[in-house]
Amino acid sequence: MSAIENSKLAIIGAGAVGTSLAYASLIRQSAREVVLYDINEAKVEAEVLDLAHGTQFTGASCVSGGSDLDAIAGANMVVITAGARQHPGQSRLDMAGVNVGILRELMPKLVERAPDAVFMIVTNPCDILTYAALHFSGLPSARVFGSGTVLDSSRLRWLLSHRVDVAIANVHAVIVGEHGDSEFPLWSQARVGPISLAQWVADDLSPVTNGRVKFSEAEFEAITEDVKTAAYRVIAGKGATNYAIGLSGARIVEAVLRDEGAVLPVSSVLTGYRGVSKVALSVPTVVNADGVSRVIEVPFSDSEQTLFQHSADTLRATLDRLGLA
Amino acid sequence: MSAIENSKLAIIGAGAVGTSLAYASLIRQSAREVVLYDINEAKVEAEVLDLAHGTQFTGASCVSGGSDLDAIAGANMVVITAGARQHPGQSRLDMAGVNVGILRELMPKLVERAPDAVFMIVTNPCDILTYAALHFSGLPSARVFGSGTVLDSSRLRWLLSHRVDVAIANVHAVIVGEHGDSEFPLWSQARVGPISLAQWVADDLSPVTNGRVKFSEAEFEAITEDVKTAAYRVIAGKGATNYAIGLSGARIVEAVLRDEGAVLPVSSVLTGYRGVSKVALSVPTVVNADGVSRVIEVPFSDSEQTLFQHSADTLRATLDRLGLA
Amino acid sequence: MSAIENSKLAIIGAGAVGTSLAYASLIRQSAREVVLYDINEAKVEAEVLDLAHGTQFTGASCVSGGSDLDAIAGANMVVITAGARQHPGQSRLDMAGVNVGILRELMPKLVERAPDAVFMIVTNPCDILTYAALHFSGLPSARVFGSGTVLDSSRLRWLLSHRVDVAIANVHAVIVGEHGDSEFPLWSQARVGPISLAQWVADDLSPVTNGRVKFSEAEFEAITEDVKTAAYRVIAGKGATNYAIGLSGARIVEAVLRDEGAVLPVSSVLTGYRGVSKVALSVPTVVNADGVSRVIEVPFSDSEQTLFQHSADTLRATLDRLGLA
Amino acid sequence: MSAIENSKLAIIGAGAVGTSLAYASLIRQSAREVVLYDINEAKVEAEVLDLAHGTQFTGASCVSGGSDLDAIAGANMVVITAGARQHPGQSRLDMAGVNVGILRELMPKLVERAPDAVFMIVTNPCDILTYAALHFSGLPSARVFGSGTVLDSSRLRWLLSHRVDVAIANVHAVIVGEHGDSEFPLWSQARVGPISLAQWVADDLSPVTNGRVKFSEAEFEAITEDVKTAAYRVIAGKGATNYAIGLSGARIVEAVLRDEGAVLPVSSVLTGYRGVSKVALSVPTVVNADGVSRVIEVPFSDSEQTLFQHSADTLRATLDRLGLA
Repeated sequence: MSAIENSKLAIIGAGAVGTSLAYASLIRQSAREVVLYDINEAKVEAEVLDLAHGTQFTGASCVSGGSDLDAIAGANMVVITAGARQHPGQSRLDMAGVNVGILRELMPKLVERAPDAVFMIVTNPCDILTYAALHFSGLPSARVFGSGTVLDSSRLRWLLSHRVDVAIANVHAVIVGEHGDSEFPLWSQARVGPISLAQWVADDLSPVTNGRVKFSEAEFEAITEDVKTAAYRVIAGKGATNYAIGLSGARIVEAVLRDEGAVLPVSSVLTGYRGVSKVALSVPTVVNADGVSRVIEVPFSDSEQTLFQHSADTLRATLDRLGLA
Repeated sequence: MSAIENSKLAIIGAGAVGTSLAYASLIRQSAREVVLYDINEAKVEAEVLDLAHGTQFTGASCVSGGSDLDAIAGANMVVITAGARQHPGQSRLDMAGVNVGILRELMPKLVERAPDAVFMIVTNPCDILTYAALHFSGLPSARVFGSGTVLDSSRLRWLLSHRVDVAIANVHAVIVGEHGDSEFPLWSQARVGPISLAQWVADDLSPVTNGRVKFSEAEFEAITEDVKTAAYRVIAGKGATNYAIGLSGARIVEAVLRDEGAVLPVSSVLTGYRGVSKVALSVPTVVNADGVSRVIEVPFSDSEQTLFQHSADTLRATLDRLGLA
Repeated sequence: MSAIENSKLAIIGAGAVGTSLAYASLIRQSAREVVLYDINEAKVEAEVLDLAHGTQFTGASCVSGGSDLDAIAGANMVVITAGARQHPGQSRLDMAGVNVGILRELMPKLVERAPDAVFMIVTNPCDILTYAALHFSGLPSARVFGSGTVLDSSRLRWLLSHRVDVAIANVHAVIVGEHGDSEFPLWSQARVGPISLAQWVADDLSPVTNGRVKFSEAEFEAITEDVKTAAYRVIAGKGATNYAIGLSGARIVEAVLRDEGAVLPVSSVLTGYRGVSKVALSVPTVVNADGVSRVIEVPFSDSEQTLFQHSADTLRATLDRLGLA
Repeated sequence: MSAIENSKLAIIGAGAVGTSLAYASLIRQSAREVVLYDINEAKVEAEVLDLAHGTQFTGASCVSGGSDLDAIAGANMVVITAGARQHPGQSRLDMAGVNVGILRELMPKLVERAPDAVFMIVTNPCDILTYAALHFSGLPSARVFGSGTVLDSSRLRWLLSHRVDVAIANVHAVIVGEHGDSEFPLWSQARVGPISLAQWVADDLSPVTNGRVKFSEAEFEAITEDVKTAAYRVIAGKGATNYAIGLSGARIVEAVLRDEGAVLPVSSVLTGYRGVSKVALSVPTVVNADGVSRVIEVPFSDSEQTLFQHSADTLRATLDRLGLA
């Protein structure tokens, strides 16, 4: 049956993030075929073996890869997790510059081998690199986006779910802006099931309210702070974050490869969105086989608009310093 | 390992609805063990065989059953799909009365055999029978509810999902009130991803808007009508509805057996909810291993309040005529 | 992303078998897109609606269809469940002739609209119609096969699994030959985990043997009889079989659409297999995106060879009477 | 619903293996609740956070944990991945002695908190520690086993699956004996679908044989060597193995928590099995909610019997040196 094309996912970078994303994708069967690439041949071959040894338990999904970039040929989606880590004494800007340099060289090679793929940037600083990757790719803007604040939003929803004792699937809240310090939750749109989070109160008709009370402004702020510092606490305790970003990434992959039209806060280069252009930022976005099918115009409160503009200004300044017009 | 208790689901009634629900539950592995009961021995044994013959393909789930009610002993959840159909010349009220009579006899026998179970009524008229079943069971109100408008809401979401070209999981809308002619969508709370349905417009930043326009009042009304008449059209074409109610039921079962805290518009006997008491109606409800963990106080618009009260009055009148105080 | 092609499954016939197969495929996400076709417009549209109303609970899978055959265009797999039932007074041969006539007209239309698809025949008599469908299609023999004894083998495994108290996934046994009265289990190859079924004995080291004893010849015969008459008992009790064949069919669909290389006893036209040619019979077969990738040469005992030849002769005689050379 | 008890899995040790096993269990929903314990508080809390941050994408499964052992109270299954690594200059025997010492202290504390649990040892040397853990636990032998050669068998099946181009699920082969250098494949029982691996030949009826030939003795030996050295190659390239053992472990957990009766080559203390007693070794075993439900008496060839006895002697000698009678 030459006509069917089973979904092929290429993951660039066999570090903790890339391999966790591969592992999650195999277990979830997010793709039929996962190809892992890294310049470190010994490392990537060991990771592929370790992943392949578990495929008795992952249905029809399979994994291969190595240090030959040609293995990604014809991929339907390419996820980039490769990049330099921040060295001691190196500024974040310097580190960003190094990773921009990597993408400058890498993107044309990837596009050459997978010309029809959707590209997702996971490497940090995610928003900066998404802008750079689009620039270097020459592709339409819909086809290049970053994993953005999908992970941050998942952290927020996990906290809220425990707070209100409702399934995380029914707690709707989203972090927007930079995947970094200037990000913020869209509290004005947060919901528990069909009601606004601000309306979630204790004086309920149910027999099991357990004295719940309304959310206070202070609690909203504490939760915001908790989410924004979560990555730092994970890194302090284990040296890196990998599992949650791996799952978040696999979930976004599914939205593309299954052509879902799922609403996810990925980071894409905006044009005239709430007054913002020429930076990549995360906002609620419809993701399907085209990549970014639509960025959703969300009503912001005044303070949210201010925070969003601040996030954009921060990123634009960095892009300027990196020479990315 | 005597301590672990794998989930046991009992389904009462081996008609098209009961068996579709069993089939969906087995395939989804909603329960470890499905027991099907019907008074018609030849029928139920054939249905159990037909379901069991497919269990090579349903993982660890298994099915058994027959016409001996003792097979449901110790069930964690009991789903009631049994009941009389409306005969030609018989009024809907008469039919309801017959089914109330069945529950009057059945509920004590079920509670005796599965004293710790959560009970769900699927048989129609669902809201009337939920009220009756609670009454006859002697159980706390949290432990007896109806499948209510979970199916109707799924129909609404399917229509909206196609209209806005967004994944159904991200189209949040709910039908409340009677599972029947007086039901209505809570348009005031309907959302696409993070925004109100009323805000979903065409003049978007995305490259693929395809000239979408705002929803009009007329379109809302047309969709409402479409949902409310959907069951009639299915019945006209195939004589019954079974597949969607089967899946909806299996989904609710999971919310209970996995202790999810999922928000679902099931029907439960209300007390002082938006001024309504002593009828069972569907409103957004947190469902977990306790059954109804909490009914969520949703803000209604004035017209929604009027419709809700009308739905309650309609049902209360029927309950009165059936002698159910 | 024009390069990705999500899997499309067309099901011909919206009866109990076709719709159960569609339902199972949607729930299992066997295909991204399910299209249901039937000549009875009112019936098929009602079935599509009933299936679609449940898709809130089936992930990214979707369903559509109707009475316009063009809807199957570009399908990756086509499953045929349509056909006449046996009328009272009509012989089985007459009924087979009617269904051959249907395929004679249908196959060219299907191949025209889905020229690259793999075709599976589910309608009975399955082996006769598989031979006819291949003949009328003009396709390579690998691309047309029947669901064969996949269901019968599942029935056998279910019985054995209960008998030895081992997970059905680890009970390996297969029915071969005609999907009908002349079928038989390949007892010589039946296994429980890594040992022959004949070696499964009671004097085991485990603390929980419960006095198990070796299988006797009489027990093998009783199980064979049980499997061969199972369909009759289901039909006697509920008028038809649909759930197990629906699941079996969905499973085979996955083997093709996921390019699995799964070993399944499907029915295909044999050439020189154990001395048999020019009939379609079920033998263990590697199924992947090509359809039949390989029929596996299984060693038969002398009595198995005799039974297999008998099955072939029976079918060849019917094909002769139907004028299918 | 006080009667239902959702499955609780405790994982001891938050290293790469323990957290990969937790990750796989969450994604696969192997357990409803995963609790991770480690003595390193900062590390385990960071790992729990990283895992929890992804639970938006893992259905109803949830994760918690820390450095307080009381969190495992009431677990249905306890998986032990904790242990010392081999230090430079330290012999393997010395390392084993250290881990035996850890279990001597740990097992009574675990059994006190989870008295009804099934216990699985993943830490190496797996067979030695399984024997020790059973000894220190005071539990019936069925309730304590090791992950054994489930992973090694998965490696073997992956290699064979690629060699014969058949789905891994239909390639039946098993490694038995020590989880270590003296392990060996039971070639005499290896199968592809319904036939012996030795019978898998090229002169097949299928159109796609591609010149396959019979397996040679040399090829069997090469594959055996490949499997036995696989872990060393993974460790050489990435410093450890974690993903495949994580998946293997999650799969075994499911066999217990779902009461499957699955056949898996776990390691348990044998009594009179093929002449072997008083050591823990992997042989095909029926695993269900009781833990080891039955070890299956597999016929060995003469050379397999010799290898098995050698594996047992090797382990018994180590146990003797460690003072474990």
